[in-house]
Amino acid sequence: MATVKVILAGPRGQMGMAARRMIAATEAFETIAYLDRKSAEESGLQEGIPVYTDATECFSVHQADVLIDLTTPETAKEHLKLAIEHSIRPVIGTTGFTDDEIDQLRNLTEDKQLGAMIVPNFALGAVLMMKFSQIAAKFYSDVEIIERHHDNKLDAPSGTALKTATLISDVRNEKVQGHPNETETLPGARGGDVAGMRIHSVRLPGSVAHQEVIFGGHGETLTIRHDSMNRDSFMPGVKLAVETVMKSSTLIYGLENIID
Amino acid sequence: MATVKVILAGPRGQMGMAARRMIAATEAFETIAYLDRKSAEESGLQEGIPVYTDATECFSVHQADVLIDLTTPETAKEHLKLAIEHSIRPVIGTTGFTDDEIDQLRNLTEDKQLGAMIVPNFALGAVLMMKFSQIAAKFYSDVEIIERHHDNKLDAPSGTALKTATLISDVRNEKVQGHPNETETLPGARGGDVAGMRIHSVRLPGSVAHQEVIFGGHGETLTIRHDSMNRDSFMPGVKLAVETVMKSSTLIYGLENIID
Amino acid sequence: MATVKVILAGPRGQMGMAARRMIAATEAFETIAYLDRKSAEESGLQEGIPVYTDATECFSVHQADVLIDLTTPETAKEHLKLAIEHSIRPVIGTTGFTDDEIDQLRNLTEDKQLGAMIVPNFALGAVLMMKFSQIAAKFYSDVEIIERHHDNKLDAPSGTALKTATLISDVRNEKVQGHPNETETLPGARGGDVAGMRIHSVRLPGSVAHQEVIFGGHGETLTIRHDSMNRDSFMPGVKLAVETVMKSSTLIYGLENIID
Amino acid sequence: MATVKVILAGPRGQMGMAARRMIAATEAFETIAYLDRKSAEESGLQEGIPVYTDATECFSVHQADVLIDLTTPETAKEHLKLAIEHSIRPVIGTTGFTDDEIDQLRNLTEDKQLGAMIVPNFALGAVLMMKFSQIAAKFYSDVEIIERHHDNKLDAPSGTALKTATLISDVRNEKVQGHPNETETLPGARGGDVAGMRIHSVRLPGSVAHQEVIFGGHGETLTIRHDSMNRDSFMPGVKLAVETVMKSSTLIYGLENIID
Repeated sequence: MATVKVILAGPRGQMGMAARRMIAATEAFETIAYLDRKSAEESGLQEGIPVYTDATECFSVHQADVLIDLTTPETAKEHLKLAIEHSIRPVIGTTGFTDDEIDQLRNLTEDKQLGAMIVPNFALGAVLMMKFSQIAAKFYSDVEIIERHHDNKLDAPSGTALKTATLISDVRNEKVQGHPNETETLPGARGGDVAGMRIHSVRLPGSVAHQEVIFGGHGETLTIRHDSMNRDSFMPGVKLAVETVMKSSTLIYGLENIID
Repeated sequence: MATVKVILAGPRGQMGMAARRMIAATEAFETIAYLDRKSAEESGLQEGIPVYTDATECFSVHQADVLIDLTTPETAKEHLKLAIEHSIRPVIGTTGFTDDEIDQLRNLTEDKQLGAMIVPNFALGAVLMMKFSQIAAKFYSDVEIIERHHDNKLDAPSGTALKTATLISDVRNEKVQGHPNETETLPGARGGDVAGMRIHSVRLPGSVAHQEVIFGGHGETLTIRHDSMNRDSFMPGVKLAVETVMKSSTLIYGLENIID
Repeated sequence: MATVKVILAGPRGQMGMAARRMIAATEAFETIAYLDRKSAEESGLQEGIPVYTDATECFSVHQADVLIDLTTPETAKEHLKLAIEHSIRPVIGTTGFTDDEIDQLRNLTEDKQLGAMIVPNFALGAVLMMKFSQIAAKFYSDVEIIERHHDNKLDAPSGTALKTATLISDVRNEKVQGHPNETETLPGARGGDVAGMRIHSVRLPGSVAHQEVIFGGHGETLTIRHDSMNRDSFMPGVKLAVETVMKSSTLIYGLENIID
Repeated sequence: MATVKVILAGPRGQMGMAARRMIAATEAFETIAYLDRKSAEESGLQEGIPVYTDATECFSVHQADVLIDLTTPETAKEHLKLAIEHSIRPVIGTTGFTDDEIDQLRNLTEDKQLGAMIVPNFALGAVLMMKFSQIAAKFYSDVEIIERHHDNKLDAPSGTALKTATLISDVRNEKVQGHPNETETLPGARGGDVAGMRIHSVRLPGSVAHQEVIFGGHGETLTIRHDSMNRDSFMPGVKLAVETVMKSSTLIYGLENIID
């Protein structure tokens, strides 16, 4: 395979830095330009790779195969459209698109026969956990979710736990779990309730991002567990998205739709 | 749905006893006859359900929907053919069929437009674990398997662990895992090697049947774990097979082919 | 060691049946009489071991070393005093003694230089888990407890989880864990609060009795976990108590006081 | 408590950097000097804390309470003796002392009524895991160890796993575990053998340093597990050692001797 020429937008954020490590370690990928809020002089990004602050200029000068965009939602939306105009396949790691916007963007990419991906969650392991949970939920009526994060996390439960519960409730018959007459002698002990399922949020130092989804059946349990240590764990998802847009000719939303 | 009329072969083995509990607890199923090596008088099987020692007689007298066969491989093979002849949908829990035999049996069932299942492993949870492992193996190059059983188990590793490793090696690029220069200062510490993967067999009292498949990637691990406590855990698989043969018009081999 | 001669009170309950299996499997122990609510004729307990319904008669006729009492609290209290009078070392598996009663009983046993144990929880594994948790709590300021039981359990959290939390709070400086500004977007997600610690109760079929105590520190977690499958898991505790009363000359309350 | 004045030797290694973070975050501790191979000019260590390359000079100029030494074994040995001479309580994180050397050093410290610690392993969590394992081993005849590390680790099993097994074998009756007639159909599946126990070494990317010690008994398992993410996990052990030498008047070897 010829080397995939990449423009990376947002190279100095934590995701951006992880992406630079990933591209450097991937023989088939090559960064040909950075797109940044700041010029190379201002940011000190001196790697011999040209740095642009203007997307149109960047996309006009460099015939890239793929744009990896790890900036903010607004910036990413602009970059996405510009990239499609310049026939550069976009891989956008952000949320905040409406269904209508996605449909319009899909039409644009299909007109150009151009691959594109919008990926709200690059954590391939978490996406697989959710996908497997949704399959298992067809066969088990009972499931609980335990997620564990560092105690500097503000909200409970985690977005991934809520997303997992929603995906499960999409396929299962609603069931209020536990004994019908169970009582909490300690309020909250049985966790939070989502469509009859329970979610438990553990907050402890020494943790990073962990979740287990436990299905219980007659005489057995099936557990799907994901442990994430750092942002490097997002990079296989970025890599997979880049490989996918190189082979696709439409816009795909979410890693879950390229796993089977 | 009309009640599914079941003939149960092998009602006194451990699987058979679990099946009787499952059918009794399932409103949509009804046992109309037992097929046994011994007569009711000899075996003491006195539940008001007729007991037959001759399959042909049993299948002729009773217009059953489904035969659940939990006997030995040889007996099950005979019962399978006889059941198809009598247009009773067979659910056979045994191994030992050749590919040719399965093809012939499939032709027979398709001629009759009759659903049938041969299920070497009714443990739905274990089948899901293997299926998920095979999907995950496409995205992770490194995986190890830890299985734990009671210390009265004679062979290591377990059949399920070997089957899982084989299914994984079918889809992944072979990789010799671990550091290229790693050394075992204690022989066997790194486990058994299957196509570059490692399998570890733990044998401890207080265990029943447990397995975890751990995939490792950059900064993350994804774990799929199955814990089985007793033979009741096979019954959701039996139930699913019965429901499947009622809707199918061919022979299906293995639960993994009805999960998606 | 000479064989320990045992009188077993309550031989037909679930604990009693497990005790009979344990004694039968222990070369150094021998049952010389049963004490039961019902006579052998009424209960059908026909093993060649004499069955008594009257404790005084039983203790007078048989010079036993140890009484293992697995009956109800009231019955056990009576048996305990009678056993001490007859110089039979009692091992009582029950709760409900006041501190005063225990002190009086201790005096009685010390007068006679007789070993005795009252054991509210024979689950040695659970007792070790609690003991280890109490030690670890001196070194870690953050801990959460996750307990998992079958979904036919009525109360949450489990008695063992509450006991563990109490034992931990006895030794640690109270700390309200989690981020000071954390918010539950789903009520109950963060579990039940005991002295600033959180307890999470999972209820799933396919579970028996499981608990993990997770301590979190800078860059590490320490987890103590107990999985109990059935009542056989209480028997090592019964055996240890019998061995202990044979060497002791006072009353000891709880297995935790003979572990070090 | 008055502030503990610390001289830190080896401030630029990974442990040294973690120690600087820990001291900065601990109100009761204050670094008054660094001891380094290189001068401040050479190393660029410019924090306003004086840097010495000569230990005698450093210890003469600064009346420190404690020396934390995170250098190499040889250097640490020299520093240790010099510190005792200058009545500075040493906390030495290294191995390689003979029993005779330790006895002589203990005499020196007792003559001066000076607290001192030599700590081969500052990982308090791992030390607790080993201590708990040794206690549990008195009550369970069966145990296996599973350790998991990153796949860049060269040796298997880990030092901690071997140390744990040795500590267990010191207290238990040797037992060859598993079924007497068990067979490995895959060589190595049953792991490495230490005194009848089995050790299993898993090597996977996405791992850091993990170990679980699983004890199996009738109908139950008791598991002690330690997960270490980074060198910060050593700092509570360093802190505990500093607090201990401030209260002690002899030399203590190993954190395990100050835990109870």
